[in-house]
Amino acid sequence: MRCEVVAIGTELLLGQIIDTNSSWIGDHLAQIGIDSLHQTKVGDNHERIVDALKTALKRSDAVICCGGLGPTQDDITREAIAEVMGVELELDPNIVEIIKRMFESRGRTMPDNNLNQARIPKGAAAIAKQPGTAPGLICPIGNQVIYAVPGVPYEMHQMMESAILPDLLKRSGTKAIIKSKVLKTWGYSESRLAELLSNRIEQLDEKRNPTLAFLASGIEGLKVRITAKGETASSVLSTIEKEEAIVRGLLGNSIFGSDDETMESVVIKLLKQRNLTMSITELTSGGIASTRLSNKDPFGEVFAGGLVPRSSKTRERILGLERDLIGTEEGAKNLAKATRDFFGSDIGLATTGEHDLPGQSAAGKTFLGIADSKGERVELVKLPGDYERVRQFSVISLLNALRLEIIKK
Amino acid sequence: MRCEVVAIGTELLLGQIIDTNSSWIGDHLAQIGIDSLHQTKVGDNHERIVDALKTALKRSDAVICCGGLGPTQDDITREAIAEVMGVELELDPNIVEIIKRMFESRGRTMPDNNLNQARIPKGAAAIAKQPGTAPGLICPIGNQVIYAVPGVPYEMHQMMESAILPDLLKRSGTKAIIKSKVLKTWGYSESRLAELLSNRIEQLDEKRNPTLAFLASGIEGLKVRITAKGETASSVLSTIEKEEAIVRGLLGNSIFGSDDETMESVVIKLLKQRNLTMSITELTSGGIASTRLSNKDPFGEVFAGGLVPRSSKTRERILGLERDLIGTEEGAKNLAKATRDFFGSDIGLATTGEHDLPGQSAAGKTFLGIADSKGERVELVKLPGDYERVRQFSVISLLNALRLEIIKK
Repeated sequence: MRCEVVAIGTELLLGQIIDTNSSWIGDHLAQIGIDSLHQTKVGDNHERIVDALKTALKRSDAVICCGGLGPTQDDITREAIAEVMGVELELDPNIVEIIKRMFESRGRTMPDNNLNQARIPKGAAAIAKQPGTAPGLICPIGNQVIYAVPGVPYEMHQMMESAILPDLLKRSGTKAIIKSKVLKTWGYSESRLAELLSNRIEQLDEKRNPTLAFLASGIEGLKVRITAKGETASSVLSTIEKEEAIVRGLLGNSIFGSDDETMESVVIKLLKQRNLTMSITELTSGGIASTRLSNKDPFGEVFAGGLVPRSSKTRERILGLERDLIGTEEGAKNLAKATRDFFGSDIGLATTGEHDLPGQSAAGKTFLGIADSKGERVELVKLPGDYERVRQFSVISLLNALRLEIIKK
Repeated sequence: MRCEVVAIGTELLLGQIIDTNSSWIGDHLAQIGIDSLHQTKVGDNHERIVDALKTALKRSDAVICCGGLGPTQDDITREAIAEVMGVELELDPNIVEIIKRMFESRGRTMPDNNLNQARIPKGAAAIAKQPGTAPGLICPIGNQVIYAVPGVPYEMHQMMESAILPDLLKRSGTKAIIKSKVLKTWGYSESRLAELLSNRIEQLDEKRNPTLAFLASGIEGLKVRITAKGETASSVLSTIEKEEAIVRGLLGNSIFGSDDETMESVVIKLLKQRNLTMSITELTSGGIASTRLSNKDPFGEVFAGGLVPRSSKTRERILGLERDLIGTEEGAKNLAKATRDFFGSDIGLATTGEHDLPGQSAAGKTFLGIADSKGERVELVKLPGDYERVRQFSVISLLNALRLEIIKK
């Protein structure tokens, strides 16, 4: 079964908005085994939208069009679909009610132009879950179908998950349940990871259930996605579990988490289990670790605090650190220890490198300091990329070093 | 003149990579007055790439295809273009030399499969500027043209700017020079901004030179882009300058910067001119301000430092702040003053709100504290969105409040 995506909106063509919706949809179609061979962007122009939809229906069984369902004159997706279906628009009193109530609940009266949103092609059905004023539509055309969803990402996501993906699965005749699990790794390069998994991927390629896919996502780590299908939820979960065990056997401790976990959420969880607190002084990372940790642990159960001392005066006075130790191994040790004392936490962390000194343009070589009651250790990493990337990579590298220390204990 | 974009790569359809290239190209085409009415994504499949290119040439004068110029078997853009042109590929010895030298300069030998990158359609010309191993191509077909650029963004940007945009301008017969200037604003909502500028935009719409366009970019502020064309660089600049004066007259101090400037770079510049230093304690923002400020001022000429004290114990001990003042106006004042003292800077800043206390899920109401030698002030802002957005918005709101104080003096 094939399903293409048509993203509608002149602002997409002008680059004023980046079309992340098509990527999200493509990812979710792939996960349920539906091919999406074309994705198209087209502006708010009736003729060209109609054209794009007709072209899509020549090649595919289903089309998801995204955007152009708002209340203004620019929003002409409904009209274009009606033309492709060869029908008129008609006012749906249920949708009128839904939109009216939405305005009333905010203490406002529905403006007249929102009535446009309730005019839908004859023969189309509105998607029950409607988080905003724009209804999603399911528009059958013979054996084919056009779906219409709003361009607002969270509205689109809800409609895809509640109605469109299930409908596509039903149409594709797939009775199978399909599920994925993403394992996140840090430490191996992309090519090394591919090497480690190549035999296993070859073995799997024959029966295609489960499958393994790579997703590089920069400073968030490298991801390995296991996708399995089966007739019952329990058989799918068991296939994924077995495959996960094999992948974990091959990749070991480089796997730091799965699905929605991040390096910082994993480290916070590990520390919380052990009733430990931590703090950090960020020379190289300049606040990035504090931002991430405070987002996951806003009330400081584990993360006691972060310090970003920029001027040498500040560093000397607050932490008692001598300027010429910055960017050195000893500096990272002292800094981690001073941080631990300063915040009164169980663990003190620090990032520093030569790039933290004026006049040192060479970025990359970074010392990661860890201090606890047993003393201080430093890990030296050579990080790729420009200053901004080095700052980012220093955080995930340091948190990963701490993670490995904790789990090896 | 019309030019469409064809982005090539199965990973784009699968949503493993978001296609930001097409948006960048669309934006830059619009800036030089060339219409881009269609943008298409297609996978690494010979037949479908050929199809996409032929379809594009039926509707447009030029096509830019992006991606699929690497050395592997998946990279088949060259072959597809050759088929559309009705020619063979031939080895270009100049390109072979360029790629060889690139490997040699890194102390490596060119692998054989990189020779594929030097095989280009007969009649095509390589783009002189080639930052990576993939050459960009200009492939004329009668009066039409296909351009091919690599999918690596910075390689694509260089080729677009050095060769493709100038070539398109020449082909379009436009002798005009086109330039833009972006003014960045903070403080007005998008609809209020539209209201303030609506008369002016109507006036301009008649002659279309200069033009004004809006670009919303969330926490980076709302942007107003002035685009002008003319026969000489000086006449274009003078058109932009005149328009800028009019827009500044309408929007006043809400304009905080232009083009590559950010709120933090502007505040740092203003403070540096006045020989002032500043520091911040980030309860609500949790490290975001420190990250941004340290990125623009890494050696602390202006930014003395940031503190992210998460646990109440830390706050009490380090800053002497009482827990029950957090999230209040008085708390923001005390915090700003304590920060100023702690870092020994001229100005102390602070962000706090009820959302910084456990059990207070309501986010948004945020107190922004500013302390200097004259005392403390607090600004209360109600910020929209979830916790993450409130954290982000609190930073630009606070820095903007400081900016307005400085320039009003």
